[in-house]
Amino acid sequence: MGERERAKRPGGRGARVAAAVHQAVTDLIRERGYGTFSVGDVAARAGVADSSIYRRWGSLEKLLTDVALASLNARSPMPDTGSLAGDLHTYADQVAREITGPDGPAMLHLAVALSRSQQGAQAHDDLLAERTRQLESMLDRARARGEDAPDAYGVLDHLLAPMYIRVMLGRGTLTKEYVDGLVERLL
Amino acid sequence: MGERERAKRPGGRGARVAAAVHQAVTDLIRERGYGTFSVGDVAARAGVADSSIYRRWGSLEKLLTDVALASLNARSPMPDTGSLAGDLHTYADQVAREITGPDGPAMLHLAVALSRSQQGAQAHDDLLAERTRQLESMLDRARARGEDAPDAYGVLDHLLAPMYIRVMLGRGTLTKEYVDGLVERLL
Repeated sequence: MGERERAKRPGGRGARVAAAVHQAVTDLIRERGYGTFSVGDVAARAGVADSSIYRRWGSLEKLLTDVALASLNARSPMPDTGSLAGDLHTYADQVAREITGPDGPAMLHLAVALSRSQQGAQAHDDLLAERTRQLESMLDRARARGEDAPDAYGVLDHLLAPMYIRVMLGRGTLTKEYVDGLVERLL
Repeated sequence: MGERERAKRPGGRGARVAAAVHQAVTDLIRERGYGTFSVGDVAARAGVADSSIYRRWGSLEKLLTDVALASLNARSPMPDTGSLAGDLHTYADQVAREITGPDGPAMLHLAVALSRSQQGAQAHDDLLAERTRQLESMLDRARARGEDAPDAYGVLDHLLAPMYIRVMLGRGTLTKEYVDGLVERLL
Protein backbone atom coordinates (compact mmCIF):
# COMPACT_ATOMS: atom_id res chain seq x y z
CA MET A 1 0.00 0.00 0.00
CA GLY A 2 1.46 3.37 -1.06
CA GLU A 3 1.77 6.38 1.23
CA ARG A 4 -1.00 8.16 -0.67
CA GLU A 5 -3.48 5.35 0.01
CA ARG A 6 -2.44 5.13 3.66
CA ALA A 7 -3.05 8.85 4.18
CA LYS A 8 -6.63 8.55 2.95
CA ARG A 9 -8.00 5.89 5.27
CA PRO A 10 -8.88 6.52 8.91
CA GLY A 11 -6.04 5.32 11.06
CA GLY A 12 -3.59 6.31 8.32
CA ARG A 13 -0.70 8.77 8.62
CA GLY A 14 -2.93 11.87 8.87
CA ALA A 15 -4.89 10.35 11.73
CA ARG A 16 -1.70 9.27 13.52
CA VAL A 17 -0.25 12.78 13.24
CA ALA A 18 -3.51 14.30 14.52
CA ALA A 19 -3.61 11.88 17.47
CA ALA A 20 0.04 12.57 18.37
CA VAL A 21 -0.48 16.35 18.16
CA HIS A 22 -3.69 16.23 20.23
CA GLN A 23 -1.92 14.12 22.86
CA ALA A 24 1.04 16.53 22.93
CA VAL A 25 -1.29 19.51 23.46
CA THR A 26 -3.20 17.69 26.21
CA ASP A 27 0.07 16.80 27.97
CA LEU A 28 1.48 20.34 27.69
CA ILE A 29 -1.73 21.86 29.09
CA ARG A 30 -1.68 19.41 32.03
CA GLU A 31 2.03 20.00 32.73
CA ARG A 32 2.41 23.72 32.09
CA GLY A 33 -0.99 25.32 31.45
CA TYR A 34 -2.25 27.51 28.63
CA GLY A 35 -0.19 30.41 27.35
CA THR A 36 3.11 28.70 28.16
CA PHE A 37 3.89 26.77 24.97
CA SER A 38 4.26 27.40 21.23
CA VAL A 39 3.55 25.45 18.04
CA GLY A 40 7.25 24.52 18.11
CA ASP A 41 6.89 22.95 21.58
CA VAL A 42 3.86 20.93 20.43
CA ALA A 43 5.69 19.79 17.28
CA ALA A 44 8.76 18.69 19.26
CA ARG A 45 6.65 16.77 21.76
CA ALA A 46 4.57 15.10 19.02
CA GLY A 47 7.61 14.29 16.88
CA VAL A 48 6.30 16.15 13.80
CA ALA A 49 7.45 19.21 11.85
CA ASP A 50 6.13 22.68 12.78
CA SER A 51 4.98 23.00 9.15
CA SER A 52 2.72 19.94 9.50
CA ILE A 53 0.88 21.70 12.33
CA TYR A 54 0.59 25.03 10.51
CA ARG A 55 -0.59 23.27 7.31
CA ARG A 56 -3.32 21.34 9.11
CA TRP A 57 -4.48 23.82 11.80
CA GLY A 58 -3.20 27.21 10.64
CA SER A 59 -2.42 28.58 14.13
CA LEU A 60 -1.86 27.57 17.75
CA GLU A 61 -5.26 29.05 18.63
CA LYS A 62 -7.08 26.89 16.08
CA LEU A 63 -5.19 23.83 17.31
CA LEU A 64 -6.06 24.52 20.97
CA THR A 65 -9.77 24.90 20.23
CA ASP A 66 -9.74 21.81 17.99
CA VAL A 67 -8.31 19.78 20.88
CA ALA A 68 -10.80 21.31 23.34
CA LEU A 69 -13.76 20.57 21.04
CA ALA A 70 -12.65 16.96 20.44
CA SER A 71 -12.30 16.49 24.20
CA LEU A 72 -15.73 18.06 24.90
CA ASN A 73 -17.42 15.96 22.21
CA ALA A 74 -15.83 12.76 23.53
CA ARG A 75 -16.54 13.39 27.21
CA SER A 76 -19.79 15.31 26.96
CA PRO A 77 -21.70 14.42 23.76
CA MET A 78 -25.17 15.91 23.39
CA PRO A 79 -27.61 13.27 24.68
CA ASP A 80 -30.55 11.84 22.72
CA THR A 81 -32.73 10.08 25.32
CA GLY A 82 -36.07 10.52 23.56
CA SER A 83 -37.45 13.28 25.83
CA LEU A 84 -36.48 16.90 26.46
CA ALA A 85 -36.46 16.38 30.24
CA GLY A 86 -34.22 13.32 29.83
CA ASP A 87 -31.87 15.14 27.47
CA LEU A 88 -31.57 18.24 29.68
CA HIS A 89 -31.03 16.24 32.88
CA THR A 90 -28.35 14.10 31.20
CA TYR A 91 -26.70 17.13 29.60
CA ALA A 92 -26.74 19.14 32.86
CA ASP A 93 -25.25 16.20 34.80
CA GLN A 94 -22.46 15.85 32.20
CA VAL A 95 -21.63 19.55 32.28
CA ALA A 96 -21.61 19.57 36.09
CA ARG A 97 -19.23 16.59 36.16
CA GLU A 98 -17.07 18.15 33.43
CA ILE A 99 -16.59 21.58 35.02
CA THR A 100 -15.99 20.23 38.53
CA GLY A 101 -13.57 17.58 37.20
CA PRO A 102 -9.77 17.80 36.87
CA ASP A 103 -9.94 19.57 33.48
CA GLY A 104 -12.61 22.08 34.53
CA PRO A 105 -10.28 25.00 35.33
CA ALA A 106 -8.29 24.33 32.13
CA MET A 107 -11.32 25.15 29.97
CA LEU A 108 -11.71 28.49 31.75
CA HIS A 109 -8.01 29.24 31.35
CA LEU A 110 -8.31 28.40 27.64
CA ALA A 111 -11.17 30.88 27.24
CA VAL A 112 -9.14 33.61 28.97
CA ALA A 113 -5.98 32.79 26.97
CA LEU A 114 -7.89 32.92 23.68
CA SER A 115 -9.60 36.20 24.58
CA ARG A 116 -6.21 37.96 24.39
CA SER A 117 -5.88 37.86 20.59
CA GLN A 118 -8.16 38.42 17.60
CA GLN A 119 -7.23 35.01 16.20
CA GLY A 120 -7.90 33.39 19.57
CA ALA A 121 -11.28 35.10 19.91
CA GLN A 122 -12.24 33.86 16.43
CA ALA A 123 -11.19 30.28 17.26
CA HIS A 124 -13.12 30.41 20.56
CA ASP A 125 -16.15 31.74 18.70
CA ASP A 126 -15.99 28.83 16.26
CA LEU A 127 -15.85 26.32 19.13
CA LEU A 128 -18.88 27.92 20.82
CA ALA A 129 -20.79 28.06 17.54
CA GLU A 130 -20.21 24.33 17.02
CA ARG A 131 -21.37 23.39 20.55
CA THR A 132 -24.38 25.74 20.20
CA ARG A 133 -25.27 24.05 16.90
CA GLN A 134 -25.21 20.65 18.66
CA LEU A 135 -27.38 22.00 21.49
CA GLU A 136 -29.86 23.46 19.01
CA SER A 137 -30.13 20.08 17.26
CA MET A 138 -31.08 18.54 20.60
CA LEU A 139 -33.75 21.22 21.19
CA ASP A 140 -35.00 20.88 17.57
CA ARG A 141 -35.51 17.14 18.10
CA ALA A 142 -37.68 17.96 21.13
CA ARG A 143 -39.78 20.43 19.10
CA ALA A 144 -40.16 17.85 16.33
CA ARG A 145 -41.65 15.51 18.96
CA GLY A 146 -44.13 18.29 19.89
CA GLU A 147 -42.34 19.31 23.13
CA ASP A 148 -42.15 22.94 24.24
CA ALA A 149 -38.37 23.53 24.29
CA PRO A 150 -36.50 26.68 25.41
CA ASP A 151 -34.04 28.17 22.93
CA ALA A 152 -30.28 27.67 23.23
CA TYR A 153 -29.88 31.06 24.95
CA GLY A 154 -32.38 30.03 27.64
CA VAL A 155 -30.28 26.92 28.29
CA LEU A 156 -27.13 29.06 28.36
CA ASP A 157 -28.59 31.71 30.71
CA HIS A 158 -30.44 29.58 33.23
CA LEU A 159 -28.76 26.16 33.16
CA LEU A 160 -25.14 26.52 32.04
CA ALA A 161 -24.39 30.03 33.37
CA PRO A 162 -25.39 29.33 37.01
CA MET A 163 -23.28 26.15 37.10
CA TYR A 164 -20.25 27.81 35.49
CA ILE A 165 -20.43 30.83 37.79
CA ARG A 166 -20.88 28.72 40.94
CA VAL A 167 -17.74 26.74 40.03
CA MET A 168 -15.74 29.81 38.98
CA LEU A 169 -16.58 31.66 42.18
CA GLY A 170 -16.17 28.56 44.35
CA ARG A 171 -19.72 29.11 45.65
CA GLY A 172 -21.48 25.93 46.76
CA THR A 173 -21.13 22.49 45.22
CA LEU A 174 -23.16 21.33 42.22
CA THR A 175 -25.28 18.76 44.09
CA LYS A 176 -27.75 16.53 42.23
CA GLU A 177 -30.60 18.49 43.87
CA TYR A 178 -29.16 21.82 42.72
CA VAL A 179 -28.62 20.69 39.10
CA ASP A 180 -32.06 19.00 38.97
CA GLY A 181 -33.60 22.22 40.33
CA LEU A 182 -32.08 24.29 37.52
CA VAL A 183 -33.43 21.86 34.90
CA GLU A 184 -36.94 21.81 36.46
CA ARG A 185 -37.01 25.60 36.63
CA LEU A 186 -36.00 25.81 32.97
CA LEU A 187 -38.65 23.27 31.88
CA MET B 1 0.80 68.77 64.27
CA GLY B 2 2.97 65.66 64.94
CA GLU B 3 3.31 62.69 62.59
CA ARG B 4 1.27 60.51 64.96
CA GLU B 5 -1.68 62.91 64.89
CA ARG B 6 -1.46 63.22 61.11
CA ALA B 7 -1.57 59.42 60.67
CA LYS B 8 -4.82 59.18 62.65
CA ARG B 9 -7.04 61.56 60.73
CA PRO B 10 -8.55 60.73 57.34
CA GLY B 11 -6.45 62.30 54.65
CA GLY B 12 -3.37 61.82 56.81
CA ARG B 13 -0.25 59.88 55.89
CA GLY B 14 -1.92 56.45 56.06
CA ALA B 15 -4.65 57.55 53.66
CA ARG B 16 -2.11 59.11 51.31
CA VAL B 17 -0.07 55.88 51.23
CA ALA B 18 -3.23 53.84 50.61
CA ALA B 19 -4.31 56.14 47.77
CA ALA B 20 -0.86 56.03 46.14
CA VAL B 21 -0.69 52.24 46.43
CA HIS B 22 -4.22 51.79 45.03
CA GLN B 23 -3.39 54.09 42.12
CA ALA B 24 -0.15 52.21 41.44
CA VAL B 25 -2.01 48.88 41.35
CA THR B 26 -4.71 50.31 39.05
CA ASP B 27 -2.04 51.68 36.69
CA LEU B 28 -0.05 48.43 36.63
CA ILE B 29 -3.18 46.38 35.88
CA ARG B 30 -4.11 48.74 33.01
CA GLU B 31 -0.58 48.75 31.58
CA ARG B 32 0.53 45.17 32.09
CA GLY B 33 -2.34 43.02 33.36
CA TYR B 34 -2.64 40.72 36.34
CA GLY B 35 0.10 38.22 37.13
CA THR B 36 2.83 40.45 35.71
CA PHE B 37 3.89 42.53 38.73
CA SER B 38 5.09 42.04 42.30
CA VAL B 39 4.72 43.92 45.59
CA GLY B 40 8.14 45.45 44.79
CA ASP B 41 6.82 46.86 41.50
CA VAL B 42 3.80 48.38 43.25
CA ALA B 43 6.00 49.88 45.99
CA ALA B 44 8.41 51.41 43.46
CA ARG B 45 5.54 52.92 41.46
CA ALA B 46 3.80 54.28 44.56
CA GLY B 47 7.04 55.60 46.08
CA VAL B 48 6.70 53.63 49.33
CA ALA B 49 8.70 50.83 50.95
CA ASP B 50 7.80 47.18 50.27
CA SER B 51 7.48 46.75 54.03
CA SER B 52 4.71 49.39 54.19
CA ILE B 53 2.65 47.30 51.78
CA TYR B 54 3.29 44.00 53.57
CA ARG B 55 2.51 45.61 56.95
CA ARG B 56 -0.81 47.02 55.77
CA TRP B 57 -2.08 44.34 53.33
CA GLY B 58 -0.05 41.22 54.18
CA SER B 59 0.24 39.93 50.58
CA LEU B 60 -0.10 40.95 46.93
CA GLU B 61 -3.32 38.90 46.73
CA LYS B 62 -4.92 40.81 49.63
CA LEU B 63 -3.85 44.11 48.09
CA LEU B 64 -5.30 43.21 44.67
CA THR B 65 -8.68 42.24 46.13
CA ASP B 66 -8.71 45.35 48.37
CA VAL B 67 -8.25 47.52 45.27
CA ALA B 68 -10.90 45.56 43.34
CA LEU B 69 -13.41 45.86 46.21
CA ALA B 70 -12.81 49.59 46.62
CA SER B 71 -13.32 50.05 42.90
CA LEU B 72 -16.50 47.94 42.85
CA ASN B 73 -17.95 49.77 45.86
CA ALA B 74 -17.19 53.15 44.30
CA ARG B 75 -18.53 52.37 40.83
CA SER B 76 -21.29 49.93 41.67
CA PRO B 77 -22.65 50.55 45.20
CA MET B 78 -25.71 48.51 46.22
CA PRO B 79 -28.77 50.67 45.47
CA ASP B 80 -31.47 51.63 47.98
CA THR B 81 -34.37 52.94 45.89
CA GLY B 82 -37.21 51.99 48.25
CA SER B 83 -38.49 48.99 46.26
CA LEU B 84 -37.08 45.57 45.39
CA ALA B 85 -37.87 46.01 41.69
CA GLY B 86 -36.15 49.41 41.69
CA ASP B 87 -33.11 48.05 43.54
CA LEU B 88 -32.73 45.01 41.26
CA HIS B 89 -33.16 47.02 38.05
CA THR B 90 -30.61 49.60 39.21
CA TYR B 91 -28.19 46.91 40.40
CA ALA B 92 -28.53 44.88 37.18
CA ASP B 93 -27.96 47.99 35.04
CA GLN B 94 -24.82 48.85 37.05
CA VAL B 95 -23.40 45.33 36.75
CA ALA B 96 -24.13 45.25 33.00
CA ARG B 97 -22.34 48.59 32.54
CA GLU B 98 -19.45 47.46 34.76
CA ILE B 99 -18.71 44.14 33.05
CA THR B 100 -19.06 45.51 29.52
CA GLY B 101 -16.90 48.55 30.37
CA PRO B 102 -13.13 48.95 29.96
CA ASP B 103 -12.33 47.23 33.28
CA GLY B 104 -14.69 44.30 32.73
CA PRO B 105 -12.13 41.79 31.44
CA ALA B 106 -9.69 42.83 34.18
CA MET B 107 -12.06 41.55 36.90
CA LEU B 108 -12.23 38.17 35.16
CA HIS B 109 -8.44 38.05 34.82
CA LEU B 110 -8.15 38.90 38.54
CA ALA B 111 -10.41 35.98 39.44
CA VAL B 112 -8.35 33.60 37.30
CA ALA B 113 -5.03 34.95 38.65
CA LEU B 114 -6.22 34.58 42.26
CA SER B 115 -7.51 31.04 41.66
CA ARG B 116 -3.90 29.88 41.16
CA SER B 117 -2.86 30.08 44.84
CA GLN B 118 -4.36 29.23 48.21
CA GLN B 119 -3.76 32.78 49.44
CA GLY B 120 -5.35 34.19 46.28
CA ALA B 121 -8.39 31.94 46.60
CA GLN B 122 -8.83 33.10 50.22
CA ALA B 123 -8.58 36.77 49.24
CA HIS B 124 -11.07 36.26 46.40
CA ASP B 125 -13.41 34.48 48.81
CA ASP B 126 -13.25 37.43 51.21
CA LEU B 127 -14.11 39.87 48.39
CA LEU B 128 -17.09 37.77 47.30
CA ALA B 129 -18.28 37.38 50.91
CA GLU B 130 -18.25 41.15 51.36
CA ARG B 131 -20.21 41.82 48.14
CA THR B 132 -22.66 39.00 49.03
CA ARG B 133 -23.18 40.58 52.48
CA GLN B 134 -24.02 43.90 50.79
CA LEU B 135 -26.45 42.17 48.40
CA GLU B 136 -28.12 40.35 51.30
CA SER B 137 -28.61 43.67 53.12
CA MET B 138 -30.45 44.98 50.05
CA LEU B 139 -32.68 41.87 49.96
CA ASP B 140 -33.25 42.05 53.75
CA ARG B 141 -34.47 45.65 53.39
CA ALA B 142 -37.02 44.41 50.81
CA ARG B 143 -38.22 41.67 53.18
CA ALA B 144 -38.49 44.21 56.01
CA ARG B 145 -40.84 46.21 53.74
CA GLY B 146 -42.95 43.05 53.29
CA GLU B 147 -41.69 42.27 49.78
CA ASP B 148 -41.09 38.70 48.60
CA ALA B 149 -37.36 38.77 47.80
CA PRO B 150 -35.25 35.96 46.28
CA ASP B 151 -32.14 34.92 48.19
CA ALA B 152 -28.65 36.06 47.18
CA TYR B 153 -28.02 32.74 45.37
CA GLY B 154 -31.14 33.30 43.24
CA VAL B 155 -29.75 36.70 42.23
CA LEU B 156 -26.36 35.11 41.50
CA ASP B 157 -27.78 32.22 39.45
CA HIS B 158 -30.42 33.97 37.35
CA LEU B 159 -29.37 37.62 37.17
CA LEU B 160 -25.57 37.89 37.56
CA ALA B 161 -24.53 34.53 36.06
CA PRO B 162 -26.31 34.99 32.68
CA MET B 163 -24.83 38.49 32.26
CA TYR B 164 -21.30 37.38 33.19
CA ILE B 165 -21.41 34.32 30.91
CA ARG B 166 -22.81 36.30 27.97
CA VAL B 167 -19.94 38.77 28.28
CA MET B 168 -17.27 36.10 28.87
CA LEU B 169 -18.40 34.09 25.86
CA GLY B 170 -18.94 37.18 23.71
CA ARG B 171 -22.52 36.04 23.12
CA GLY B 172 -24.98 38.86 22.42
CA THR B 173 -24.93 42.33 23.93
CA LEU B 174 -26.51 43.19 27.27
CA THR B 175 -29.35 45.33 25.90
CA LYS B 176 -31.75 47.13 28.24
CA GLU B 177 -34.50 44.69 27.15
CA TYR B 178 -32.33 41.68 27.94
CA VAL B 179 -31.31 42.94 31.40
CA ASP B 180 -34.88 44.01 32.24
CA GLY B 181 -36.09 40.57 31.13
CA LEU B 182 -33.71 38.83 33.56
CA VAL B 183 -34.94 41.04 36.44
CA GLU B 184 -38.64 40.49 35.58
CA ARG B 185 -38.09 36.73 35.37
CA LEU B 186 -36.38 36.76 38.77
CA LEU B 187 -39.15 38.85 40.38
